[in-house]
Amino acid sequence: MGRVTVRRPVRRITTAGDIRRPDSLAVEEPMELRVGGRPLAVTMRTPGNDIDLVHGFLLTEGIVGSREDIRTVRYCDGRDEEGRNTYNVLDVALTAGVPAPDVGVERNFYTTSSCGVCGKASLDAVKLRSRYSPATDEVRVDATVLGGLPDSLRAAQQVFDATGGLHAAGLFTADGEALVVREDVGRHNAVDKVIGWAVQTSRVPLSGCVLMVSGRASFELVQKAVMAGIPVLAAVSAPSSLAVELAMEAGVTVVGFLRGTSMNVYTHPERVLA
Amino acid sequence: MGRVTVRRPVRRITTAGDIRRPDSLAVEEPMELRVGGRPLAVTMRTPGNDIDLVHGFLLTEGIVGSREDIRTVRYCDGRDEEGRNTYNVLDVALTAGVPAPDVGVERNFYTTSSCGVCGKASLDAVKLRSRYSPATDEVRVDATVLGGLPDSLRAAQQVFDATGGLHAAGLFTADGEALVVREDVGRHNAVDKVIGWAVQTSRVPLSGCVLMVSGRASFELVQKAVMAGIPVLAAVSAPSSLAVELAMEAGVTVVGFLRGTSMNVYTHPERVLA
Repeated sequence: MGRVTVRRPVRRITTAGDIRRPDSLAVEEPMELRVGGRPLAVTMRTPGNDIDLVHGFLLTEGIVGSREDIRTVRYCDGRDEEGRNTYNVLDVALTAGVPAPDVGVERNFYTTSSCGVCGKASLDAVKLRSRYSPATDEVRVDATVLGGLPDSLRAAQQVFDATGGLHAAGLFTADGEALVVREDVGRHNAVDKVIGWAVQTSRVPLSGCVLMVSGRASFELVQKAVMAGIPVLAAVSAPSSLAVELAMEAGVTVVGFLRGTSMNVYTHPERVLA
Repeated sequence: MGRVTVRRPVRRITTAGDIRRPDSLAVEEPMELRVGGRPLAVTMRTPGNDIDLVHGFLLTEGIVGSREDIRTVRYCDGRDEEGRNTYNVLDVALTAGVPAPDVGVERNFYTTSSCGVCGKASLDAVKLRSRYSPATDEVRVDATVLGGLPDSLRAAQQVFDATGGLHAAGLFTADGEALVVREDVGRHNAVDKVIGWAVQTSRVPLSGCVLMVSGRASFELVQKAVMAGIPVLAAVSAPSSLAVELAMEAGVTVVGFLRGTSMNVYTHPERVLA
């Protein structure tokens, strides 16, 4: 995949002058996911590790529970106007007996409950769909190990170094060992890529693991952690209210504002040893 | 709306100690948008300025072109389990003669072209749907004015000060005067809120205006700028490849890495006077 970054001419204005020079940009391209030939979803993503992305998306959307539920993932033979394969359409064949998803499923979740959509209904929807529960995971993580994760994540970000413009997600052991790090223009895609790697290597549910993300922790990211059975989610920045509510209910430890030796633990703080 | 922030107990770990204290979190709640009673989309957003969000979403999705296309927007009488209105479901009545959107429309765009989805098809889809074109906008903006926008945006962010966890978007005149600033857990929602404010005050197309966003500039944000006729999009961080491609084709000036006196101008640099 030579399409992770592209070079573009840029006008750079500083107090020292006004120059034109080439600059590297992170590539963003649409990816269409089909199941059994029927379109399921389109996401804007950074090309690369697409097979990981597909596995992670299908797991975190509740469509599959393990690699055994997926028979094949292949690029379609789609061509653009110039006859080149775009490598932007992937088709999944599910294993016999695995129910096909409803076509038209929303990217995150959808509820048409008569009481109107609310945070509580969102929490319930995740609980209904998840095959795994991190609630009983007895892992303990030293605060000093957590404090080292942002640097470990950053050190593994190859594309960020070139572009300054990508999110990252990484899976770590409780000892701080990096299992996998992935980058993407979309934070949710970066998380799906690392979870998809774990699906393919039969590591799901990810008991005892820490998921570290750049930026903030939204409801959607906690939802993905729950679906993959991850007990600890750590973020560089702030979590949202609904992220914390879901983590509280589902038994996920959420760590935010993780910067060097300081951090906030929002839920299930017993897993963090200080 | 007392639900923009909530207080939560937090365990705060630093080198100075390990304490429990209350902390403020940005609220994230699902919002369901219905048109004529039929569900159209669900987005996770920060409550507040929901009417703005609805107007902006409908405009940037190409469903309406101006405030005249919308007859009413009202909160549904949805109740949660405790009988309280969630204020999370809004129903729009379109003006007679305005076509109802296809139910099931994707959050961004959807293409089922036989050639497979590709960046070019994404660009074409935006061009087909937009009623306005920023391409001929002859506005000029001083680099010093642009350099002041991040501080102006930040100064107007009330909720960020409390939580450290929100994105922001602001509309500014070419002289740097702030017209409107909105915050949200989702950057795309913050942009829809400021554009929706402009729809309601009959300022669309937003000729001569600058849209300033926290964080990065994705394809989706350039798409929204195009749909609202905004000629200049400025971001604190990096744009993606497809954001720059769309901006080039649609005539939007994209400024990135805007920090004090330095910035990168990626497209249509003639609008920036240095």
